[in-house]
Amino acid sequence: MKAQPLTDFQRLSINDATTKIQLTLEEEIRLYAEMGIQGISIWRDKLAQCGVDRAAKLLDEYRMTVTGLCRGGMFPAATAQGRQEAIEDNRRAIEEAAAIKAQCLVLVVGGMPEGSKDIAGARQMVLDGLHSIIEYARSLQVPLAIEPLHPMYAADRACVNTMAQANDLCDEVGEGIGIALDVYHVWWDPDLRHQIQRAGKARLLGFHICDWLVPTQDMLLDRGMMGDGVIDIPQIRGWVEAEGYTGFHEVEIFSAENWWQKPAEEVLTVCKERYLKVV
Amino acid sequence: MKAQPLTDFQRLSINDATTKIQLTLEEEIRLYAEMGIQGISIWRDKLAQCGVDRAAKLLDEYRMTVTGLCRGGMFPAATAQGRQEAIEDNRRAIEEAAAIKAQCLVLVVGGMPEGSKDIAGARQMVLDGLHSIIEYARSLQVPLAIEPLHPMYAADRACVNTMAQANDLCDEVGEGIGIALDVYHVWWDPDLRHQIQRAGKARLLGFHICDWLVPTQDMLLDRGMMGDGVIDIPQIRGWVEAEGYTGFHEVEIFSAENWWQKPAEEVLTVCKERYLKVV
Repeated sequence: MKAQPLTDFQRLSINDATTKIQLTLEEEIRLYAEMGIQGISIWRDKLAQCGVDRAAKLLDEYRMTVTGLCRGGMFPAATAQGRQEAIEDNRRAIEEAAAIKAQCLVLVVGGMPEGSKDIAGARQMVLDGLHSIIEYARSLQVPLAIEPLHPMYAADRACVNTMAQANDLCDEVGEGIGIALDVYHVWWDPDLRHQIQRAGKARLLGFHICDWLVPTQDMLLDRGMMGDGVIDIPQIRGWVEAEGYTGFHEVEIFSAENWWQKPAEEVLTVCKERYLKVV
Repeated sequence: MKAQPLTDFQRLSINDATTKIQLTLEEEIRLYAEMGIQGISIWRDKLAQCGVDRAAKLLDEYRMTVTGLCRGGMFPAATAQGRQEAIEDNRRAIEEAAAIKAQCLVLVVGGMPEGSKDIAGARQMVLDGLHSIIEYARSLQVPLAIEPLHPMYAADRACVNTMAQANDLCDEVGEGIGIALDVYHVWWDPDLRHQIQRAGKARLLGFHICDWLVPTQDMLLDRGMMGDGVIDIPQIRGWVEAEGYTGFHEVEIFSAENWWQKPAEEVLTVCKERYLKVV
């Protein structure tokens, strides 16, 4: 059931959070391309810094596939106005994703509004938010990719914490929405294989990789390089590819004390080595 | 569906990890009793320090109900010898639990053996371990309480991370085993209410309370006092009590930088205040 070893870099994408500190988007596009990497996933702050039009032009020039725009979501808010602002921001994100031909807009759905203890209520706000933006996303042909986040982020980042929840939301919302599976968030889930099967090819819009370090020093910024932790990545990739997933494998490593402190070339070189060896 | 407010301390228990740094077990028994707290849950290191016989005598003298002994479990190991040693240690823990008339032996089941990436294998080792000790636990009339731990501990502490998994294990093992539900570990789970119903009164052997802080500074030692975080404790207590749970409410707070730095009397005073106000 494990995936066949990878033998080339055709399906390797780098989420540019991996070189968050070291490079601007323009530098990333040039360096990734130069190193034979053909996929990139882009965060909106860097996109804004570069300018959407200029980024779109560079991405074309360097023939980069944009495997995702990070991120939309963050739907829950304490007030109706706050929720409306979130929807407007999501609409802008959809436009940006369309402009750079992103394969999907990744959604980190948001946690509970400040002061709230109502996680069920937050989850309802997420569903309402999705209903509010889905038509616009469909009209611009931007698939929405719900990213279930690890339960340790349930309070403040994403109250969608399992593949089962993401699948339930897809059931509710219908066409034009799917899932970005990040092994970091879901590797522990005993129901993972079944929920990957339930998602199937149509819903599997992204496959993100890194590793879970033992011990983990920081809940947000201590993700590991593939192979340095405990996640059986080939197993999960095997399950995803058994459903027919043929998309990119996107490396996304937030690592304040380690990888963000190293030169980008070194980080990418190690990503490529590990990609062939342990992914 | 929320629980009725609590009006007295008859069902308040303190897990003695809450005063881990400040007090010995003997001091805990005396102080808790003096402060009108009639339940205590005890960690084995403090029990060993005190001596089991002496502890049993003190607990009798002060009429303390022992709501749990912490902890058995830790079943997975890389070698057969390691797994056998874990079983022997669990048998000793069962004997200790019987000696101090603990209402249950809490099981933190263990994570993956060092170097392993096989979480399914670790979960099988847990099931095998439970099968190896259940008869002995039954013979000494010590209920085993599986404590599902938050998924952020899946690698290194407990590969049982949801109430659903704990219920599945109970289904497999049969009589004499149940669940210790700690709101800290399961509050985020969208399936929580259903799994509490599935557990029912017979399996609900413990109800542990504290709070999830935002932000959480440390994955292990930054639990919050009830009311200081985002968990809707009355909601979860309501679900548990709707099943007929009439046991103690056990406060368990690991807090290296905050509550462990305060005098025990102060910590317990705040526990009692919050217990009536937000539990």
